[in-house]
Amino acid sequence: MTLPSDPVANLAALIRCPSVTPADGGALDALQAMLAPLGAVCEQVAFAEKGTPEVNNLYARLGTGRPHLMFAGHTDVVPPGDESAWRHPPFAARIDGGEMFGRGAVDMKGGIACFLAALARYVERNGPPPGSVSFLITGDEEGPAVNGTVKLLEWAAARGERWDAAIVGEPTCRETLGDTLKIGRRGSLSGTLTVIGRQGHVAYPHLADNPVRGLLTLAEALLSVPFDAGTDDFPPTNLEITSIDVGNPAVNVIPARAVASFNLRFNELWSVESLKAEIGRRLERASREARLRPGHAAPIAFEVEWRDRPSPVFLTRDRQLVGTLSASVAAVTGRRPELSTTGGTSDARFIKDYCPVVELGLVGQTMHMVDERVPLAALEALTRIYLRFLEDWFA
Amino acid sequence: MTLPSDPVANLAALIRCPSVTPADGGALDALQAMLAPLGAVCEQVAFAEKGTPEVNNLYARLGTGRPHLMFAGHTDVVPPGDESAWRHPPFAARIDGGEMFGRGAVDMKGGIACFLAALARYVERNGPPPGSVSFLITGDEEGPAVNGTVKLLEWAAARGERWDAAIVGEPTCRETLGDTLKIGRRGSLSGTLTVIGRQGHVAYPHLADNPVRGLLTLAEALLSVPFDAGTDDFPPTNLEITSIDVGNPAVNVIPARAVASFNLRFNELWSVESLKAEIGRRLERASREARLRPGHAAPIAFEVEWRDRPSPVFLTRDRQLVGTLSASVAAVTGRRPELSTTGGTSDARFIKDYCPVVELGLVGQTMHMVDERVPLAALEALTRIYLRFLEDWFA
Ligand SMILES: [Zn+2]
Ligand SMILES: [Zn+2]
Repeated sequence: MTLPSDPVANLAALIRCPSVTPADGGALDALQAMLAPLGAVCEQVAFAEKGTPEVNNLYARLGTGRPHLMFAGHTDVVPPGDESAWRHPPFAARIDGGEMFGRGAVDMKGGIACFLAALARYVERNGPPPGSVSFLITGDEEGPAVNGTVKLLEWAAARGERWDAAIVGEPTCRETLGDTLKIGRRGSLSGTLTVIGRQGHVAYPHLADNPVRGLLTLAEALLSVPFDAGTDDFPPTNLEITSIDVGNPAVNVIPARAVASFNLRFNELWSVESLKAEIGRRLERASREARLRPGHAAPIAFEVEWRDRPSPVFLTRDRQLVGTLSASVAAVTGRRPELSTTGGTSDARFIKDYCPVVELGLVGQTMHMVDERVPLAALEALTRIYLRFLEDWFA
Repeated sequence: MTLPSDPVANLAALIRCPSVTPADGGALDALQAMLAPLGAVCEQVAFAEKGTPEVNNLYARLGTGRPHLMFAGHTDVVPPGDESAWRHPPFAARIDGGEMFGRGAVDMKGGIACFLAALARYVERNGPPPGSVSFLITGDEEGPAVNGTVKLLEWAAARGERWDAAIVGEPTCRETLGDTLKIGRRGSLSGTLTVIGRQGHVAYPHLADNPVRGLLTLAEALLSVPFDAGTDDFPPTNLEITSIDVGNPAVNVIPARAVASFNLRFNELWSVESLKAEIGRRLERASREARLRPGHAAPIAFEVEWRDRPSPVFLTRDRQLVGTLSASVAAVTGRRPELSTTGGTSDARFIKDYCPVVELGLVGQTMHMVDERVPLAALEALTRIYLRFLEDWFA
């Protein structure tokens, strides 16, 4: 049986499955067909939840022992948009000028294709690894992300799966392959601040209490003092007020309430709970001290509502994982990657509860765009990086 | 011929005309019928403008010489609302418990009825006044106020009419008849402040420029330093931010612009133009100095748009008018009225361009409400105040 050691062929097979979330398009079957010759035990599992579409996921494990390395990713892709705007059809995997075109080429069927090729080459050279390698692949990363990684991790853990390290193959690089290794993410916390005043006529401000004034005072308390100075691994914690909405169309009326929305991106000096407490302290103090300022009711009457699911901060300090992968990049590209903690959230935030996790994949520049594409040379280079990592990590 | 010396009968005749703006309901004819026996020369004139209903107005003058006193007011009324909620029908002028019920009883057919009665009594006692008394009565005060006082003043002035003093009979008193004499009004100026930023993702604040931050800084510049300390006649100039609207529903997006609406009520230390200039100076300075604060683009990019028609401030210092009317109140009620400059705008803001003007009328507590009503004793007392004024002013 041929092993899937060519990342270009692997990627072509995956791109030709039109797996726009929540459709699977045969992508997981195609992946499973490539994994089987390696001797991996594969299991597809569908998850559903009221109000969201059912989604297929794949868990495959090669080997039974420890150490156990997880490769995590997704086969679903975002819609191609206007297909006529593409230079080549989005699900044709056409090669042109040394690049393969197709939706998912970099985000992130390409990452899966490379890891698969790296594992095949490892087995060709060394036989099965002295431990285990698993693929944790979801079809629900680009969609609601409800029936994907979170449930698949719980499902696998409930079956006794334990991992020692994980690599997420998302397109993490900025400009050239290997320039960035993501080792953590800031946390994210969103809330709504409502200040309650007393409506009235602008001609009689002493009979009213303008909540806009109170809101400005509280906003100042949130913005004026830095939360921290940043750490070695993370930039300073930052708060942005993303909206203020009063919605009062009458210019002669003092409104009854004013609402601000805010979001915090925070580093490892804070937890969700300690940050909520700090926000509460700042607002309480400013509310009380408002009596020292003119034109205020004091204390300022306010309410805070926390929104959405907060994301905790995480940082992977595991030297064996980070150091080995960084050295593998340097060995193949000649440059050490920047260890980065910037950017939005990824599924790594769920995996970090099970084992140390880092992210390394292709250059993300064309992701989600028309003519998403990847240089064949980048596929080969990433395959070599992953291979080098497998050899060193299992050594 | 009977002269209209009974304010109760005068008011009943006016209330029975259902003159909800812009309808006249026969109110001006009824008033003219009562004025005629006094020897007043009456003229009704209709004004119209594209987009607004045609409205009748009345100008009546008794006498031809100087000094020339104007009594100004309106016969139109606001709608009665739910008529079944009234204790007595709103256009029946029913008397119950010493009070007359009806829409317009205090705002302000009552004021007209009293002044008419006062003039009749004056003529009965003294014959025609040694000068002139005019009634400038509009049917468009409660509506768009486009085809009323402003046009009637221009029309009369174009015919050569000149006045030496004016009394507006709006309901000015707060709790008891004669407690308040309005001698001026603050000016009013409204504007919109827009701060232009650069949209972006909250995870990359350095690539964006959050306009909310700039707006908070500029709002602080508008609010933190008092415009003045007030004057003998007016409270301090006051600015209220009546709304802030960003309208950004996405908590992970830094918005592109933020808009604040504000209104100023200002005293005679400012003109509309000087105040606009001061606002501009404050915003410009804060915009430039923002470079000294963290997290800002500097200068802050902003635009100010001035809204609606600003109202200039006015203050009537005419000793003969204010002093005589104040003494008349004291003679009838035993108490000097408070000389007030508070409250919203009135037609006095237009009349002040032609002659000194003050406002004195009934207690306004039931105006615009169900069961609008006036004590008969108040009608008699206001009539005596106006009569005393006529006698002293013409003396
Ligand atoms: Zn992705
Ligand atoms: Zn009125």
